[in-house]
Amino acid sequence: MHNDCMTVRIAVAGASGYAGGEILRLLCGHPRLASGELEIGALTAGGNAGTRLGEHHKNLLPLADRVLAETTPETLAGHDVVFLGLPHGQSAQIANALPPSTLIIDCGADFRLQDGHEWDRYYGGEHAGTWPYGMPELLKNRAELAGASRIAVPGCYPTVSILSIAPAIAAGLVEPRVQVVALSGASGAGRAPKANLLAAEVLGSARAYGVGGVHRHTPEIIQALSALAGQPVEVAFTPILVPMARGILATVTAPTSAPLETIREAYAQAYADEPFLHLLPDGQFPETGAVVGSNAIQVGLAVDERAGLLTAIGAVDNLTKGTGGAAVQSMNLALGWGEIEGLTTVGVAP
Amino acid sequence: MHNDCMTVRIAVAGASGYAGGEILRLLCGHPRLASGELEIGALTAGGNAGTRLGEHHKNLLPLADRVLAETTPETLAGHDVVFLGLPHGQSAQIANALPPSTLIIDCGADFRLQDGHEWDRYYGGEHAGTWPYGMPELLKNRAELAGASRIAVPGCYPTVSILSIAPAIAAGLVEPRVQVVALSGASGAGRAPKANLLAAEVLGSARAYGVGGVHRHTPEIIQALSALAGQPVEVAFTPILVPMARGILATVTAPTSAPLETIREAYAQAYADEPFLHLLPDGQFPETGAVVGSNAIQVGLAVDERAGLLTAIGAVDNLTKGTGGAAVQSMNLALGWGEIEGLTTVGVAP
Amino acid sequence: MHNDCMTVRIAVAGASGYAGGEILRLLCGHPRLASGELEIGALTAGGNAGTRLGEHHKNLLPLADRVLAETTPETLAGHDVVFLGLPHGQSAQIANALPPSTLIIDCGADFRLQDGHEWDRYYGGEHAGTWPYGMPELLKNRAELAGASRIAVPGCYPTVSILSIAPAIAAGLVEPRVQVVALSGASGAGRAPKANLLAAEVLGSARAYGVGGVHRHTPEIIQALSALAGQPVEVAFTPILVPMARGILATVTAPTSAPLETIREAYAQAYADEPFLHLLPDGQFPETGAVVGSNAIQVGLAVDERAGLLTAIGAVDNLTKGTGGAAVQSMNLALGWGEIEGLTTVGVAP
Amino acid sequence: MHNDCMTVRIAVAGASGYAGGEILRLLCGHPRLASGELEIGALTAGGNAGTRLGEHHKNLLPLADRVLAETTPETLAGHDVVFLGLPHGQSAQIANALPPSTLIIDCGADFRLQDGHEWDRYYGGEHAGTWPYGMPELLKNRAELAGASRIAVPGCYPTVSILSIAPAIAAGLVEPRVQVVALSGASGAGRAPKANLLAAEVLGSARAYGVGGVHRHTPEIIQALSALAGQPVEVAFTPILVPMARGILATVTAPTSAPLETIREAYAQAYADEPFLHLLPDGQFPETGAVVGSNAIQVGLAVDERAGLLTAIGAVDNLTKGTGGAAVQSMNLALGWGEIEGLTTVGVAP
Repeated sequence: MHNDCMTVRIAVAGASGYAGGEILRLLCGHPRLASGELEIGALTAGGNAGTRLGEHHKNLLPLADRVLAETTPETLAGHDVVFLGLPHGQSAQIANALPPSTLIIDCGADFRLQDGHEWDRYYGGEHAGTWPYGMPELLKNRAELAGASRIAVPGCYPTVSILSIAPAIAAGLVEPRVQVVALSGASGAGRAPKANLLAAEVLGSARAYGVGGVHRHTPEIIQALSALAGQPVEVAFTPILVPMARGILATVTAPTSAPLETIREAYAQAYADEPFLHLLPDGQFPETGAVVGSNAIQVGLAVDERAGLLTAIGAVDNLTKGTGGAAVQSMNLALGWGEIEGLTTVGVAP
Repeated sequence: MHNDCMTVRIAVAGASGYAGGEILRLLCGHPRLASGELEIGALTAGGNAGTRLGEHHKNLLPLADRVLAETTPETLAGHDVVFLGLPHGQSAQIANALPPSTLIIDCGADFRLQDGHEWDRYYGGEHAGTWPYGMPELLKNRAELAGASRIAVPGCYPTVSILSIAPAIAAGLVEPRVQVVALSGASGAGRAPKANLLAAEVLGSARAYGVGGVHRHTPEIIQALSALAGQPVEVAFTPILVPMARGILATVTAPTSAPLETIREAYAQAYADEPFLHLLPDGQFPETGAVVGSNAIQVGLAVDERAGLLTAIGAVDNLTKGTGGAAVQSMNLALGWGEIEGLTTVGVAP
Repeated sequence: MHNDCMTVRIAVAGASGYAGGEILRLLCGHPRLASGELEIGALTAGGNAGTRLGEHHKNLLPLADRVLAETTPETLAGHDVVFLGLPHGQSAQIANALPPSTLIIDCGADFRLQDGHEWDRYYGGEHAGTWPYGMPELLKNRAELAGASRIAVPGCYPTVSILSIAPAIAAGLVEPRVQVVALSGASGAGRAPKANLLAAEVLGSARAYGVGGVHRHTPEIIQALSALAGQPVEVAFTPILVPMARGILATVTAPTSAPLETIREAYAQAYADEPFLHLLPDGQFPETGAVVGSNAIQVGLAVDERAGLLTAIGAVDNLTKGTGGAAVQSMNLALGWGEIEGLTTVGVAP
Repeated sequence: MHNDCMTVRIAVAGASGYAGGEILRLLCGHPRLASGELEIGALTAGGNAGTRLGEHHKNLLPLADRVLAETTPETLAGHDVVFLGLPHGQSAQIANALPPSTLIIDCGADFRLQDGHEWDRYYGGEHAGTWPYGMPELLKNRAELAGASRIAVPGCYPTVSILSIAPAIAAGLVEPRVQVVALSGASGAGRAPKANLLAAEVLGSARAYGVGGVHRHTPEIIQALSALAGQPVEVAFTPILVPMARGILATVTAPTSAPLETIREAYAQAYADEPFLHLLPDGQFPETGAVVGSNAIQVGLAVDERAGLLTAIGAVDNLTKGTGGAAVQSMNLALGWGEIEGLTTVGVAP
């Protein structure tokens, strides 16, 4: 379906948003763009249609003069790959109007959940369906993504929350009661202007929100961890906004009686061949600054024997591995390209 | 012992550090300074002795030309109140050399713990002893602090961690298994220059440290909560450094089967007369920006019924209520002054 | 007109904005509130009318439950003092509908300029008029403000730009060609939500805007400096947005052949009795962090002999001395109260 | 001398510092590393010798386990390219001990200045000499760098200051009196721990330093601009530290009577073929966030006709184009590789 010998033509819907911008940033550095095997086609937007991309993404110099088309099935037609960075609930209609052969990679939540009741509880409205989950590190996903033509990119919080605790859950080394406290940079809240996301309100302040199990990423974490555990896993999730542009730091805990050594061994095995998962040595814990702009997830582990608790700390760039990087990684797999092409584990630090 | 009719003469040891600077900031605005009932005497330092205070605290204009003396029993003698902002382990020697009638308020950890084994486990060396704990909101502390001449100011993390969950623990509404994930601004790490605390390393990054039950504030939280519960309380504590100068946001959880309403009622009763504790309405959660420079603690509550968990979020300024404000509040009580004099619940925001 | 023996009743229009919030923060700490001589009356808003103040200013705990009325002459009637924190162009109508005896203090630009052509050039529309300028440190303003019933609070950039260079201009020690490059924290841009003011866009970035003499604060600086010089002063003004919530740091230069010593002497004389102006010693330069929440302006001076240039650096909190503090200072003067009441020179640092 | 068919072996001295880290970050993404034409050899340090690179640069995952050797001629011998990221004054001794055929690229100041008196005035001590200046965009530098074996990388402030005004100076469109106010992120101050560079002191604050013509980058700017002008150019330079990790925003002004259009044309011509210089459209001005991690310089122009002044605003990443990127760009030229290899114009934003 996707032929390496031909040029793959890519469209990005929602190109003026943060997810769209990150996908374009990564595509600009993708080696197949330079070689001509990849081409950046239509860039579309909603309210920003008709404006230049350069007004919205001042970093994307090579594409600065591109004019944004309106997001419609027509403008997106004729592309081999279509990335969707749309508000929740808008992807299904677009997807249904494009041919089944088009590789559609959705950065929204619409096709992530398997359980319609969970969808209804957290998002409301009709459940659009379930697509292969763009987290190759998990279960049989990598195989499923190879050749897929529909992919649901995981949420940013779920990406780091799930992968920070997955090996311990899968190996049955912790009890199925997981707590996550996850700090996110402000880009995670998207680009729609709101007074409480103004710089003056966020700078110098840390703020909890969506407390008590109501955040929409909760069922996604439950779904993935329960599948790994083979039984329902309780997940208590607390998101916190902190004054940085990018990055999520997740503190993920679960009761354990296993020694750190045993748990570490399970992680080492699970992630031995993963290109983007980096397990830190004993006594080291990640910081989000080290993964900025990279597709890496860094994980550090500790066991508090007194409290009988595993604490796994994971760091990710919410826009890269948390969104746009996972989208490109998924595209690479679906097209049969090298999984790491156009992606790096080296963050821009300090 | 402390006579309101006379001028109370105050010394600050460790005046070039952050704790010392915050105490001085608050004293500059204390109404008894203007009225002449309070006088700022010796300001002392270790390595910075001989320099002007203005070199270290560019905000303290009224005291800018004060020259720092060396921290010795001699320079601190002859004062009615001595605040100590010294490295751990140095307070006992100074305290022993001052008269028993001097009100000594120690911002260090030396006299906070009751259990010598815990001291040895977390700090090492000989346990100096136990002084009245400068957290008036807890148990019979307020009564004990009135007229005290030795006071141990609580740690910054313990202050907000303990007070965010105390009413639920005291009322037996949660199980005695508490998890705390607490984010701190960089001033919490003190002023000794270290490469990993440079602005370039902290800006744009969130970083976990002291993970797995090893942070020194852990036994202090356990001690206070266990006293409230009347039984041992398990505490798993994870500190995180986030890119802001001031503030701590603590996410404190404990298993519960009680409804939110019942828990809220317990908090409302416990904190009804507390001048600095502010319980937020349902669905609202605190942000540290709102308490900057104030002595307030703001607390928000949620119950995740699915996970059976109370999540209490507390915000505090680590330098004010978390250190210097608690020190001044304790002084006010010990001297028989109004508890809130020189302190405010109104933060500097945005 | 304003009787000390009676309670002065104060209204704040635009109470949900940053200027309104800062005025309220300062009034909460004003000593005449505690003594009952000052009372906080109507709080009004535009779009936010009907909501609680606590939703907008989470730091103003004592006023959290106040409900915002609509900004109309009726809601503002019956107050002795009315602070206006309204969008440009809306003050005149309100002011005209209130009695001449009401002390109206306008934080907007409407009544700052004397020259209608300049108003038209930079703001457009009809010039509302000119009120006494709320910068007591300048010329005969202090005398004029005593007993005034209409006051125009200076702009934030002009406040620090003018006062950083005023003594040199007034003494004829520099040529009348001034350049200002001024960095502002994000609160200077106000609270109306815009995508380019989102935290994600501002964090980690410095951004120039309004370059080339087009910023609206330019004519205000020209007006004040020309009055001091007794001749037209050229002013080139460049504003820059930097990632902090509060503060302006202005670099103000003018050609000079005078030695630093002479210039310093002129500043020392001009500012000898000014409670809020602090001249730093030779070789020291201000930082905005030291003035946060205070009404101080800190100024440092250097002469580059090679380039024949005076460089004066001034730091101010844009919301305090730059807006709300100047408003309260002006109120104090107009009411015959102590000029510094409710204000401090001590910033909240670090 | 440098043979494309063989592997080029590269050493980095000062690898634990920010300059060294940035060079390594870029080399990790250099296409000739993947192809085997480039090899990362010795990584050396001073006080950090013996430690793992991963302790210092948590982003450089592929090199995390490399152990730092001591910086000596012996450890650096046997490499084709040696990057020096050493404290000022230490490069000459190392350079003299290495063969003339080794390509040495010095990120320090030692070999940037041509005038020994200027060196003595600003740095003191003996002047080490002058090497080709690693700013290909200027004069005949690109030709001179091709095949060079000694290169002095420009300072970060000079890079953006010079290139923001160079076309106007070279075309004689402005008077030779230039003022620069340049804001830098904290990484520009290096990694040596100092109390005033701690995050708590830098966050939420903007701070002027080195005011009045004393900053060491001043003579470097004068030298470059005077060479372009063919006459001495006066430069008044004011550096300011702002709370971000990376980036410099320079406001560069010079008196002009030329219209903006003429000046813009001069820039357009001068930079038409420059891969890293991007001229923004009329009315747009750069922000540093858009160039983070990239080798781009974005420049915006305005003429204030009233003040008779050109204002050019330039943005650069101080660690990339301001240091490590210029070093790699220079290496590419010296080795006859493509100038842009391993470098990008696309910043990591937001």
